[in-house]
Amino acid sequence: MSFVLTHSAYGKSRVRLTKIERHPDRHDLFEWSIDVQLTGDFALAYSVGDNRNVVATDTMKNAVYALAADGPLGSPESFALRLSQHFLTYPQVATVLIAITVDGWRRMTIAGRPHPHAFAGEGPEHRICQVLADRETRRLTSGITDMLVLKTTDSAWKDFHRDAYRTLPDTGDRILATSLTAEWTYLEEANWDSVHTQVHESLLESFASHKSLGVQHTIQVMGEAVLKAVPAVAEITLTMPNKHRIAMNLTPLGRENTNSVFLATDEPYGLITGTLRRST
Amino acid sequence: MSFVLTHSAYGKSRVRLTKIERHPDRHDLFEWSIDVQLTGDFALAYSVGDNRNVVATDTMKNAVYALAADGPLGSPESFALRLSQHFLTYPQVATVLIAITVDGWRRMTIAGRPHPHAFAGEGPEHRICQVLADRETRRLTSGITDMLVLKTTDSAWKDFHRDAYRTLPDTGDRILATSLTAEWTYLEEANWDSVHTQVHESLLESFASHKSLGVQHTIQVMGEAVLKAVPAVAEITLTMPNKHRIAMNLTPLGRENTNSVFLATDEPYGLITGTLRRST
Amino acid sequence: MSFVLTHSAYGKSRVRLTKIERHPDRHDLFEWSIDVQLTGDFALAYSVGDNRNVVATDTMKNAVYALAADGPLGSPESFALRLSQHFLTYPQVATVLIAITVDGWRRMTIAGRPHPHAFAGEGPEHRICQVLADRETRRLTSGITDMLVLKTTDSAWKDFHRDAYRTLPDTGDRILATSLTAEWTYLEEANWDSVHTQVHESLLESFASHKSLGVQHTIQVMGEAVLKAVPAVAEITLTMPNKHRIAMNLTPLGRENTNSVFLATDEPYGLITGTLRRST
Amino acid sequence: MSFVLTHSAYGKSRVRLTKIERHPDRHDLFEWSIDVQLTGDFALAYSVGDNRNVVATDTMKNAVYALAADGPLGSPESFALRLSQHFLTYPQVATVLIAITVDGWRRMTIAGRPHPHAFAGEGPEHRICQVLADRETRRLTSGITDMLVLKTTDSAWKDFHRDAYRTLPDTGDRILATSLTAEWTYLEEANWDSVHTQVHESLLESFASHKSLGVQHTIQVMGEAVLKAVPAVAEITLTMPNKHRIAMNLTPLGRENTNSVFLATDEPYGLITGTLRRST
Repeated sequence: MSFVLTHSAYGKSRVRLTKIERHPDRHDLFEWSIDVQLTGDFALAYSVGDNRNVVATDTMKNAVYALAADGPLGSPESFALRLSQHFLTYPQVATVLIAITVDGWRRMTIAGRPHPHAFAGEGPEHRICQVLADRETRRLTSGITDMLVLKTTDSAWKDFHRDAYRTLPDTGDRILATSLTAEWTYLEEANWDSVHTQVHESLLESFASHKSLGVQHTIQVMGEAVLKAVPAVAEITLTMPNKHRIAMNLTPLGRENTNSVFLATDEPYGLITGTLRRST
Repeated sequence: MSFVLTHSAYGKSRVRLTKIERHPDRHDLFEWSIDVQLTGDFALAYSVGDNRNVVATDTMKNAVYALAADGPLGSPESFALRLSQHFLTYPQVATVLIAITVDGWRRMTIAGRPHPHAFAGEGPEHRICQVLADRETRRLTSGITDMLVLKTTDSAWKDFHRDAYRTLPDTGDRILATSLTAEWTYLEEANWDSVHTQVHESLLESFASHKSLGVQHTIQVMGEAVLKAVPAVAEITLTMPNKHRIAMNLTPLGRENTNSVFLATDEPYGLITGTLRRST
Repeated sequence: MSFVLTHSAYGKSRVRLTKIERHPDRHDLFEWSIDVQLTGDFALAYSVGDNRNVVATDTMKNAVYALAADGPLGSPESFALRLSQHFLTYPQVATVLIAITVDGWRRMTIAGRPHPHAFAGEGPEHRICQVLADRETRRLTSGITDMLVLKTTDSAWKDFHRDAYRTLPDTGDRILATSLTAEWTYLEEANWDSVHTQVHESLLESFASHKSLGVQHTIQVMGEAVLKAVPAVAEITLTMPNKHRIAMNLTPLGRENTNSVFLATDEPYGLITGTLRRST
Repeated sequence: MSFVLTHSAYGKSRVRLTKIERHPDRHDLFEWSIDVQLTGDFALAYSVGDNRNVVATDTMKNAVYALAADGPLGSPESFALRLSQHFLTYPQVATVLIAITVDGWRRMTIAGRPHPHAFAGEGPEHRICQVLADRETRRLTSGITDMLVLKTTDSAWKDFHRDAYRTLPDTGDRILATSLTAEWTYLEEANWDSVHTQVHESLLESFASHKSLGVQHTIQVMGEAVLKAVPAVAEITLTMPNKHRIAMNLTPLGRENTNSVFLATDEPYGLITGTLRRST
C-alpha cells in the first residue's frame, strides 16, 4: 500500500497587527488581523519531516510586522498585495493567499471636532480583502462581513411553492433582517478605499429603498445597485442569512398583535446567496 | 441528617423582544433581551415538587410580550419598572429582578435624510438597565457595556511598585484600549434616555481628553466627569479590562520600532474597577 | 462638588498556565486559567495617578508562572491558596481573590493502556475554585461549570400556577436538559481532588436516578445527594438553565409526534438556582 | 448596462433536531444540527421576485422534522442521503447539499452500568457529514471537527528554513497541541458508524505514538494511519491549527524553566493542512 499527498498548504492565522501612523495634526490607527497561507515545494516536510524548505509560521508573523514597520500601510488591499509579493520571493513558494480583516475604529468627535488620537470601536461590520497570487497571476477580492441591517416594512414573502410540507402562510409585510456578507472582484486597478466606501453606501441605499419580494429578490437588487454605482467592480457575491423575527401569537393572551411584537431568533435561519456580474 | 434551602430564585433569561412602533413619518424599532428572576414562596417546589405557587418561566415570557403589546415601550428603564410591578402582583413573589439589554439599531441616513424604516446594527456597545424591586423598595441601575475605546497617546504607566517579580519597564507613551462597562444609580427620577446620552458623551469626552497615568487614574477621571455632568447620577462604577497592545521588538529583524507597531492581545488582561459617589 | 472612591479592585485575568510534571512512567499535564483580584491601599493611583503601591498586573502574571515553577502544583485549590498567601505578603494588599478554571485533559488510552504523554481535551465541563483571603480569614469555594446533562424521561412539569398569562400545558414526560453549575464550600480541610470526584459522581447519579417534578425539585434532590455523600461539604449552590427541547407539532405535516421529535433551543431559557446546607 | 446571475443557492441552516428512539431496555438520543442548501431553477425569484418555484426554507425545516419522524434515523450519513433524495423530488431542484453536525451525548454509567435514559454532553469534538447530490451523482464526505489533542513530548521543530525574518530557535522537545479537523471520502458503501469509530481510533493512536518532526509530518503520519486502518476511506484531509504553548522565560524571575512552564495562546496560530489518498 502506498499513499500520495494530493494537496497541502500551511501558514499563520490571526496575526493581529496594530499600527499607529503619526501626522502633525492627528494619529491614524490601523488594527488588522492577517492570515497567510502558502503552497509550494513542501512535500518532504510531510513525508519525512525534512523542514529545510519550510518557512516557519513564526517567520511569516515576523515578516508581517517588519513590512508593517517599513512604511505606511495604505489600504488593506495594497498591504495584502505587498505581503503576497514578499512571500513569492521564496523560490519554494508556488502560491500565496493573504486575507486581511479590519477591526474598525471610528475617530471620536469631541466637542464637534474630530479628535486627534481617540477612537471608538465599530462593529459588528468588518472590511475584508483577500489576495491569491502566484508568479503569473493574482486575484484580488474585497468584501464586507457582518453588515447588520433591518427594515421594518417594504418586505413581503408570498406565493412561494406549495406542497405537503409547507405550513408558512403568505405575508405582505414582514421584518427583513440580515447580517450581510459581500465580496467583489475588480475589472481594473482602483482606489480600494473609495470602492469600499461606494459599495458600502450602495448596499445600504439599495437595501433601504427597494420593496423586497424575498431575500433572493433583495440580493439581485442590491448586487445590481453595486454594479451600477461602482464601475471598477467586476462581480459581486452577496450572502444573507435571513434573521427571522417571528410575530408572536397574542390571541391566547387576550390581545391582538398588530404586526408589532416579534420574537427575534438566531436559529434556524435561511441562508441565501447570489453572484452577479456584468453581462457581455 | 437534614438540610435547609437557604436561598432560591428562578426566572426566564434571554426573552428577545422586537417591537415596531409606527408613526406617520417613521417606524421606531426596539430590540431588547429581557431577563426575569423572582424570589418568594417557592420552597415547596424545591422540597416536594409542589408547583402550585410557581409561575412558569414560560408564563413570564408570555407576560413580557403581552405587556410590550399594551402600549409604547418607552425607555428600557420604564419598561423594566413596569415589568417589576407586574410580577409583584403575584402574592407569592417577594422580589423581582428585571434586567434589559438593548441591541442597538441606528436609523439609516439615506441621501442625507433619516430613513423612515431602515436601520443598521450597532455594536459592540449595549445599553443596559436593571430593576430590583420588592413591595417597599426598588433599586434602579442603568449602564453601558462593551464600550470599546482606544487612545494612541496621552497614556503612561510608570513608577509602579518594584519587587522581585516585576519585569515590565516604565513607559511614558502607550496605547490605552478598553472595553468599558459603566453602571450607575440615581439620586432621583430622571429622563432615563437623556441620562444615558449624557453619561455616554461624558465618558467619551473624558476618556479622550485626559492624560492617563494608569487605568486606575482614568477610572477616577471618567467617573468624576460623569458625576459632574449628570446631576441625577448618585454613584457610578466603571470596570475596564486593559486590552494590551504590546510593542513588537523589531531589533532582531533589523528595524527600529518607533512606538508604532504593536501586537493586539486578548489575554491575559488587566481588569480594574472603581466606584465613585458624591461625597456628603 | 467632591467625590469619593467607595470601592476599588484590580488584577489580572486569564493568566493561562500550562505545566508539565514529568514522572518516570508518565507526564502529568495541567492547563489552568487563573484570575487575580486585589483590594487594598491603592486610592492614590485612582485619585492622582501615584502608582507606587500598585503591583502591576504584569507582575501578578509573572508571580503566577514563578510560583508554578517552584514545585508541584497540586490541586487548583491548594495552588489558589498558595497564590493568595503570596499576594498577602504585600503590605498594601488587604484582600486577595484567586479564581482558577481548569481546562480538562483526559489521558489517552491507547491499545488498552494509559498513554504516558498523550491527552485528549475534555469539555464542556470545567472544574473551578476560588479563594477570597485577607490576613485573618479565607473562604474557599470549589465548583463545576457547564456540566451538560440530559434525561429523556423521568421528568414532569405540571400543576404549576394558573393565571391569564399561562399558555403552557401540563406534561408528565418531557426531556430535562441543563448545563449545570455547582459551587460548594467546606466544613473542614479536605482532599480537594477527592471531594471534586465525589461531588461530580453524586451529581450525575442523582440527576440520572430521581424522578424530576421540575427543575426546582431536581436542584434540591441533587444538592441533598451531595451533602449526604460528601461530609466535607458545608453548603452547595446549584444553578441550572432549563435548556428546552420543544416537541414539534407534526399534525400539519400529516404525522403524529409520539413524544420523540423535538426542537432544541438555546433561548429563551429558564434559569433556576438553589442553595442547600446542613441544618443545625 | 445589464447583469447576469452567475451563481445562486439557498437553504436552511441550523435546523436543530432532537430525537428519542425508545427501546425496551433503553432510550437512544440523537441531537443533530442540519443544514440544507439547494441550487436549481430559481432565477425568477432573484430577478423579478417570482417565488413560485421557491421551496421556502421554513418548508425545508418542516421536511427535516417530518422525515425524522418517519422511522429510525440511522447514521448521520444515511439520514443525509435520505434528505438529499427527498429534496431531489422537486423538479426545480438541481443539486442538494446536506450537512449534519452531531452534538455528542455519552450514555451515563451509573453504579457501573449504562443508564437507560441519562446522558452527559460530550465536546468539543463533533462528528460531521456532508452529501452533495444531483440526479446522477452523489458525493459523501464524513468528518470529525474540533478533536482536541495534545502531547507533552515526542514533538520537535527544527532545521526549518533560515532567512532574515527567522527568529525562532530550533527545539527538539516541545508541546504539540491541536484542534484537529478530518474529512474523508469513501471508496465504497460502508458501515458509516464503524468507519467513524475506526478513523477516530486511528487518529488518536497515530497522534500519540509517532515522533513528530513538525505538524506537516504529523499530518502525513496520521493520514496514512487512517488509510491503512480503514479500507473504505478513499481520501482524507487533515487540518491542524498549531495551538502554541510558549515556554516562559523565567530567568528574569531568578528561576530556571525546565521545559515545564508554558503560556497557552490562541492567536496567532499556525494552520497546516494536507490531503492524502491511496496511490494507484
